Amino acid sequence: MKNRRSFRPPVNSDAVATLILNLVRTMKTMKIFCDMKLAGEALRLLEQGVAPHQVVYPAIPAQSVLAQAAFDPAMAEADVAFGQPAVASVLAAKRLRWVQVSSAGYTRFDTPEFRAAAAATGLALTNSSAVFAGPCAEHVLAFLLAQARVLPAALRTQCAGGTPEWDALRRACSPLGEQRILLLGYGAIALRLVELLRPFGSPITAYRRRARGDETVPIVTAEGLPAALAAADAVIDILPDNAESRDFFTAERFAQMKPGAVFYNIGRGTTVDQSALVAALHSGRLAAAWLDVTEPEPLPPGHPLLSAPNCHLTPHIAGGHGREYESLVRHFLDNFSRFVAGSPLRDRVM
Amino acid sequence: MKNRRSFRPPVNSDAVATLILNLVRTMKTMKIFCDMKLAGEALRLLEQGVAPHQVVYPAIPAQSVLAQAAFDPAMAEADVAFGQPAVASVLAAKRLRWVQVSSAGYTRFDTPEFRAAAAATGLALTNSSAVFAGPCAEHVLAFLLAQARVLPAALRTQCAGGTPEWDALRRACSPLGEQRILLLGYGAIALRLVELLRPFGSPITAYRRRARGDETVPIVTAEGLPAALAAADAVIDILPDNAESRDFFTAERFAQMKPGAVFYNIGRGTTVDQSALVAALHSGRLAAAWLDVTEPEPLPPGHPLLSAPNCHLTPHIAGGHGREYESLVRHFLDNFSRFVAGSPLRDRVM
Repeated sequence: MKNRRSFRPPVNSDAVATLILNLVRTMKTMKIFCDMKLAGEALRLLEQGVAPHQVVYPAIPAQSVLAQAAFDPAMAEADVAFGQPAVASVLAAKRLRWVQVSSAGYTRFDTPEFRAAAAATGLALTNSSAVFAGPCAEHVLAFLLAQARVLPAALRTQCAGGTPEWDALRRACSPLGEQRILLLGYGAIALRLVELLRPFGSPITAYRRRARGDETVPIVTAEGLPAALAAADAVIDILPDNAESRDFFTAERFAQMKPGAVFYNIGRGTTVDQSALVAALHSGRLAAAWLDVTEPEPLPPGHPLLSAPNCHLTPHIAGGHGREYESLVRHFLDNFSRFVAGSPLRDRVM
Repeated sequence: MKNRRSFRPPVNSDAVATLILNLVRTMKTMKIFCDMKLAGEALRLLEQGVAPHQVVYPAIPAQSVLAQAAFDPAMAEADVAFGQPAVASVLAAKRLRWVQVSSAGYTRFDTPEFRAAAAATGLALTNSSAVFAGPCAEHVLAFLLAQARVLPAALRTQCAGGTPEWDALRRACSPLGEQRILLLGYGAIALRLVELLRPFGSPITAYRRRARGDETVPIVTAEGLPAALAAADAVIDILPDNAESRDFFTAERFAQMKPGAVFYNIGRGTTVDQSALVAALHSGRLAAAWLDVTEPEPLPPGHPLLSAPNCHLTPHIAGGHGREYESLVRHFLDNFSRFVAGSPLRDRVM
C-alpha cells in the first residue's frame, strides 16, 4: 500500500475560483435580520456562516432573548428573521419568508390570525426547541433528584447519625425508580427527559391533547387525565403557553392529585392557577413544588409563592447553558443551509 | 376449555403436616444475632423470614446502624450475625459462621488480622452494598445535576430575565454530557452511577487499584491517575475507608486537578485531607465541593469546611431511602436462604 498514490486530477485553481465567484454572484444575496444581542464567537459564527448572505441588525437590540423587539425598518428588507421579532414587524415585512425565534416558546405567534397570515404568504416559523430540550430536561431531572434526595433539608443540617432528624431525612429519600411520573406535554423536552429517566425504571405516562401513536411512553388524553393525576407521585408541567393551556392547573386538578405528590413546572407560569398552587402547598396536599417559571417573572416581593412551604423557585433558567448563543446560532445555521437548499426545516412549528 | 378441570392428586393433609414437622425438627435450628433497631414491618419480615430459625437480640440496641455495638453475650450462641457487631464479639463467638453488616462500609473488619482470623475459621463476611448502591448513585447524580444547573445560586434569587445576573446564571449551567467524569472506586455504586449517566453521554473514566478487564468504562490505575485528574471536570470519590485510601486526596492530588473542577465525595471522609480541600476551595482551584461524608461526622461547629466557598454538605444520607430497614432485611433474607442452601452469598467481601 506504501507505493500507492492518491489520484489527483489536473486542476486549474484560477478557473475553479472564477467558477465559484460567478456562482456566488448569480445567487440572490439574502438579508437576515437578527435582533439578538450577539457578540464574540456567536456573532462571528453567524456572519461567517451565512456568507455571502448578509446579516442586518436593528438600531436598538432587544433587552432579552424573551423580550419582544420593537418594530424595526431593517425588517422590511429582510428575507429571513432570527431572534425575537415583533409580530407586527413580521406581518409588515413583505419580503420575509422565514422566521426562526431564538426561544422554544412562540406564544405571540400562536394565534389563529398569525397562522392564517403565515399560511397565506407561505411564511415558515421555526423555534429553537432543539437547543433548549437537553438543558431543560436536565433541569427537570435536577429538580426531581433534589426532591428525591431531600437536598433542600439535607443541605441545611449537619445532624448526627442515629438522631431522629437523621433517621427522618434518610427515610424521606425516595428512589426515583419507585416514583410514578406524569408528564404534561410531549415535545422535545419530554422526549429527552424520558431518555434520561430510562435507567431509573420509573413508570412514566404523558398527557397530550391527541395521541399520535409514535410516543415512547403511554399517553393519556383529557379523558384519562384525572386518573393519571391521582396515580402520579411527580407531576411535570412542560406545557407551552397558549389559549388551551392557560390556567390548566386549576384548584380542581390539584385536588385530583395524589396527596403528597410533587408538582414541577418548566413550561410556562400562565399554565398554573398560582393561588390554587399556594393553597395546595399550604394544605399539604402537595408535598412540594419546583418551579422554573411563574407569572409574572420575576415574582414581585411578598408574592405568596415566595413563602409557600416547600416551594422551590429558579428564575427561568431551565434552558440555559454555557455557549447558549453559539448553540442558537449553530441551530439557525443548520436550518439556514436547509432553507437555502429548499429542504424541510427543523423545529418548524408553522 | 370451560369443562376441563385441573388435576388434583389425592392428598392426606395430616400426613403432609407431619412430614413437614419432622423435617423441621430434624433441621438444626440456628440462632441469628441481630443488633439493628428493627420495628414494625422490618422486624416481622426478619422473624418470619428466618423461621423456624430464631432471631436473638442484644440487651441494649446500637445507637445507629453505623455505631459499633458493645460486646454482647447473646453472640456466643449465634450461628449468624446481622447488623453492626463489634469485631471483638465476632472473634469471641466461636459458633459464628457468617456475619452480614448492615452498611456498605466494613472498615473495622478490613484488617490483615481479621482477614486471617476469618480465613482460619471459615467465617464469611458480607455487606449490604446492594441495598445502598441505587440510592447512593442517585445521591451523586443529584449532586452532579444540582451543580450542573447551578441550583444553589438559582434557588436563592428571583432575578429578572435579561439582567447580567440572569445571563451569568444561564451561562454557568453546564450540560452534564459535556463534563468529563472521573470515578474513584469502581464497586456497586460506581456501576449503577455509570448506568444512570449513560443517556447523558458524558465521557467517564474510573480509577481502580487493579483493572480486572470486565469494567464498563475505561480504567486508570495509579500511573494514569494524574492525567485523569487533570482532564476531569467532575471528580467523584467513592472510595471506602481502608489503610490505602486514607488521605488519598492530598494537596498534591487537588493541585493535579483541572482548575475549576468540582469534587464530590460519597465514599468516606477519611479519604480526604480536609485542610487541603478547604484551601483548594478558598483558592478557587476547585469550583465547588459536594460532600455527603466528612471526618468527623457531623463536623464540629466552626469547622472550616462549613464556611468554605461553594462547599455543599449533606449529613451522610446518600444510602438512605424509605423502607431502608425492610430493604436491609430483604437483602439479608435473600442471603440467608443462600446460606441455608450452601449457595454463594451476595456482597461477600471475605
